[in-house]
Amino acid sequence: MDTISFVAIDAHVHFRQDDMLKPFVPLTAMHVARALVMPNTDPPKRIAAQVSAYEQEILDAAGPNSGFEPLMTFYIMPDTTPAMVQEFRKAANYIPIAIAGKVYPKGLTTNAELGVVDYPALFPVFEKMEELGLILCLHGEKPGDEIEGLDREKAFLRILKYIVSTFPGLKVVMEHITTEAAVETILGMSPNVRATITAHHLIITYDDAGGDRLSVYNWCKPVAKMRKDREALVEAATFGNPKFMFGSDSAPHMQEKKRRHDCCAGVYAPPGVALPRLAQLFEERGALDRLPNFAGGFALPFYEILNYLQAPLKEVTLVKEPMIVPDDYHGVIPFLAGKEISWSIKS
Amino acid sequence: MDTISFVAIDAHVHFRQDDMLKPFVPLTAMHVARALVMPNTDPPKRIAAQVSAYEQEILDAAGPNSGFEPLMTFYIMPDTTPAMVQEFRKAANYIPIAIAGKVYPKGLTTNAELGVVDYPALFPVFEKMEELGLILCLHGEKPGDEIEGLDREKAFLRILKYIVSTFPGLKVVMEHITTEAAVETILGMSPNVRATITAHHLIITYDDAGGDRLSVYNWCKPVAKMRKDREALVEAATFGNPKFMFGSDSAPHMQEKKRRHDCCAGVYAPPGVALPRLAQLFEERGALDRLPNFAGGFALPFYEILNYLQAPLKEVTLVKEPMIVPDDYHGVIPFLAGKEISWSIKS
Repeated sequence: MDTISFVAIDAHVHFRQDDMLKPFVPLTAMHVARALVMPNTDPPKRIAAQVSAYEQEILDAAGPNSGFEPLMTFYIMPDTTPAMVQEFRKAANYIPIAIAGKVYPKGLTTNAELGVVDYPALFPVFEKMEELGLILCLHGEKPGDEIEGLDREKAFLRILKYIVSTFPGLKVVMEHITTEAAVETILGMSPNVRATITAHHLIITYDDAGGDRLSVYNWCKPVAKMRKDREALVEAATFGNPKFMFGSDSAPHMQEKKRRHDCCAGVYAPPGVALPRLAQLFEERGALDRLPNFAGGFALPFYEILNYLQAPLKEVTLVKEPMIVPDDYHGVIPFLAGKEISWSIKS
Repeated sequence: MDTISFVAIDAHVHFRQDDMLKPFVPLTAMHVARALVMPNTDPPKRIAAQVSAYEQEILDAAGPNSGFEPLMTFYIMPDTTPAMVQEFRKAANYIPIAIAGKVYPKGLTTNAELGVVDYPALFPVFEKMEELGLILCLHGEKPGDEIEGLDREKAFLRILKYIVSTFPGLKVVMEHITTEAAVETILGMSPNVRATITAHHLIITYDDAGGDRLSVYNWCKPVAKMRKDREALVEAATFGNPKFMFGSDSAPHMQEKKRRHDCCAGVYAPPGVALPRLAQLFEERGALDRLPNFAGGFALPFYEILNYLQAPLKEVTLVKEPMIVPDDYHGVIPFLAGKEISWSIKS
C-alpha cells in the first residue's frame, strides 16, 4: 500500500494567539478536517464569549474553503461554575460553543498557572458537563510539591479513577498519555473514557529529552518516558482500539522561548510532520490499515463530529514518498527538524 | 560560625582548551589549592607529552604566585597500553606527569567518542596503574544501546565491582556519583575506592534538568536523579566519611553549545559558586565543620598531594555574607546564575 486516504482529526492542538495564531492555524487546517483546540492562551478562554471569538479568529486564519473547522474547548479553572458551563450548550440540539472543557494541573505546563489542584472541588462542574454531554479533557499529571515529575502521570491515574467512578456518564479524555500505566488504566475503563497519544511520544523516549541526549525541541509535558512506556503506547495506537486516538499536541513556541533559561514545554509536531511519521511507524508495525481509525475514525463518533457537521469532511492523502522535515516553521523548530520521513502528504 | 578557612581541593575540573582555557583556569585557581584536571579535550590528552604541555598551559593561565597547581590526568582509550601508562611515572620517586588516568564510557559525554565499551580489555592497563600507584578515575555510566540513560550509573556499579575485585591495590575514584545505589556500593568497598560528588548534584534533581522544569544549564552527565538519590548524596557528603570527596565537575560550555539542538552536557559550577553554596548546604544540615574535609582534607592524602608538594597549600576563606551568582562568566552561564547564596568567598 503506497497511498492512503482518510479523514484526519487532530484531537489536541495549540493554536496560540496574537501574532502566532495566523501563521500556525493553516499548518493544521491544510491537512486535517477537524482539530480540538486547547484553551490555554493568556488570558485563557474560559467563558463562552471568549471561546466564540477565538473560534472566529481561527476560522478567519484558516481562510475560506479550507475545509477545516475547529472543535472548541474551554479552560476549567478553580472558580469555574456550573452556570458558566451551561453557557457552552444553551440548548441541547444546538451546535455547542465548546464541545469540551479542559483541566490543567496547576503550574505544570504552558499557561497552567491558573490550573487546578483541588479536583473534588470541581465535581459540580463535572456533573453539569455530564448532564450537558460536554467532554472533560484532562492533562493527566498530578500537581503538588510532593510528587516528582516522572511520577506525576502515574499519580494522576487515581484522580482519573475518582472522577470516572463518580460520573460514569461523563465522557473523559486523558490527553497525551506517556506511560504504560496510563494505557493499562484506560483499557480497564468504560467506553466513555479515552486517551489521546501524540506522534512524538510514539517515537522518542526520555533519552531524547534529557536522558542520554537533550534537545529542547523534544521537551514537553508530560515528558517522554522510558522505552517500555513507548512500547505500550505504540501497541495501544497500532492495536486498532477506539480508546486510543491521535492528538498531536502541536505546541509551537518561538525558538527564543525554548532556548531560554527556563525552557517552555512543548513539541511542535503539526499534522504535516506527524501524519507522515505515523504512517512510517504504522507501516513498520504492519498496521498501516489501522492508521485511519487512530488518526481520525475513532474521533468522529466520540467527539460527535457528525452531529454538528458543517463543512464536509475532507480527506488527507499520504503517499510513500520521502520528505525532509523543514528546519523551522515561522521561527518554530518542529519535531524531527531536518530529518527524513519515508512518507509524505500528497499536495 | 561565620567564617571558615581551609585548603580547598577540587577533585574534578574541566579547563577546556584554546580560547577557553585562559579565562577559565583562573576562576578555579583563585580559590582552590589543587584541582584534578580532566583530559577530555579535542584531541584528548592521552600521552605524557600532551599532558605535560597541557599542564604548562594551565600553569601559565593561572599565572605566577597563584598558589594553584593542577593535578594532571590522562585519557585512557581502548588502545592505551601499559607502556604508555609507564611514561606517566618514569621513576617511582619522581613527581608523576599525571597522577590519574580517566576512563570515559564511549559516547556518553563531552569528547567521549573515543571512550571505552570493553572494560576487561583494559585490565592490563589497570594492572600497570596499580603497580605504579596511579589512580583510576571512572565516569561511572555503562555505555551501550541496551541501557537507558537513567539506568546507566546503576548498571555501571557491576563494572566497578569487577575492576575493584580484580585489582584490590588499585586506587579508584568513581566520579560525580548521582545515585543512592552508588553511595551504597562505594560505602561497601575498601578504602582504596572513593567517589566524588559535585555541588550541583547535592542541590538539584532531575526535576530541575528535564522533569518538572528544564534549564539546559542544569543538564549534565550523569543527569541529576531523583530526590531520594540527592538525599543519599547529601548524607554521604555531610557525614564526614573520607570515601566521599568534592569534585565540582566544572564543565564550561559557551551558551551557544548549550542552546543548540543537541545540548552539550555540563554544568559550570566553579569553586567561587560551588564552595559558598556547599557552605550554605552544610550549615543547613548542621555539618559546617565537616565541609573542610569534604572539600579538601580527604583529597590531600588520597591524591598524595603532600608527596609532591611544590607551591604551599593556600587556604580559601568562606564568610557568611550573601552573594549573587554572576549571570555569566566569559559567555558561560553558571550554575545558579543570578541566584543568591548565603555564603561567599572572602576576597
